[in-house]
Amino acid sequence: MRYIAKSLVLATTALGIAVAPGTGSAGAAQTGTQSLYAPSALVLTLTAGDDALNGSVLRAVTLTCMPTAAGTHPAAREACAELRAGGARFESIVAADSGVMCTRQWDPVTVTADGVWNGRRVAFAHTFGNSCLKDGADGVVFRF
Amino acid sequence: MRYIAKSLVLATTALGIAVAPGTGSAGAAQTGTQSLYAPSALVLTLTAGDDALNGSVLRAVTLTCMPTAAGTHPAAREACAELRAGGARFESIVAADSGVMCTRQWDPVTVTADGVWNGRRVAFAHTFGNSCLKDGADGVVFRF
Repeated sequence: MRYIAKSLVLATTALGIAVAPGTGSAGAAQTGTQSLYAPSALVLTLTAGDDALNGSVLRAVTLTCMPTAAGTHPAAREACAELRAGGARFESIVAADSGVMCTRQWDPVTVTADGVWNGRRVAFAHTFGNSCLKDGADGVVFRF
Repeated sequence: MRYIAKSLVLATTALGIAVAPGTGSAGAAQTGTQSLYAPSALVLTLTAGDDALNGSVLRAVTLTCMPTAAGTHPAAREACAELRAGGARFESIVAADSGVMCTRQWDPVTVTADGVWNGRRVAFAHTFGNSCLKDGADGVVFRF
């Protein structure tokens, strides 16, 4: 009898893991003591100037992607898709060029990404020569 | 006529600024190009061991407090109230003792807070000797 009960618990657990990613049980990923996913939670910022640490932070948004895309990022779903597709390599996200023409005027803005992605700590910063160059970078992760 | 229209726009804008903090227009704080508030967005993590940078991240939650408490933090409202009351001095939050009795066994856990609070960058880390000592600290900011 004890064996049957144990099997049942195991079966239920396995089923839970298989079904959960599709159902999107909000908050289950980060808030429980036991989580089905490696934690992912990011803060993305836009800072005036080229000094991310001491510059004036213009905007800041949060982004979580598991179990569902959430946070104050205006395009959370697209940003999550982009991060998943590229394995959260922020360097390639800011390097990708959408082909927009910009002047080379030096009026720098700095974007940062801090937090955790799939259980790995993230601390990323990149300075663009001006806002046009930032908006010219392909992708939506830093468009907020 | 042009003067009246201009005054009306100005009056509406002034009214918007005065009313918005009470009404809680979700997302307005962080996502717009023009924001009524200084940006605030945090990622809080719990890491096994005493190395926040390379340790295994056990849990991570997001927290935003303006215009309303939000994020994956399980007690976002209380955490925001605590941060506002203490001016987001994380040192005093982890130092406050709720009087719980703990052993001094060395099995460290590290909590971190990264992101932006009221436009100022936050990068905080604190190591507790063990989980009991962490839970013994007063306050809910790091209880997730």
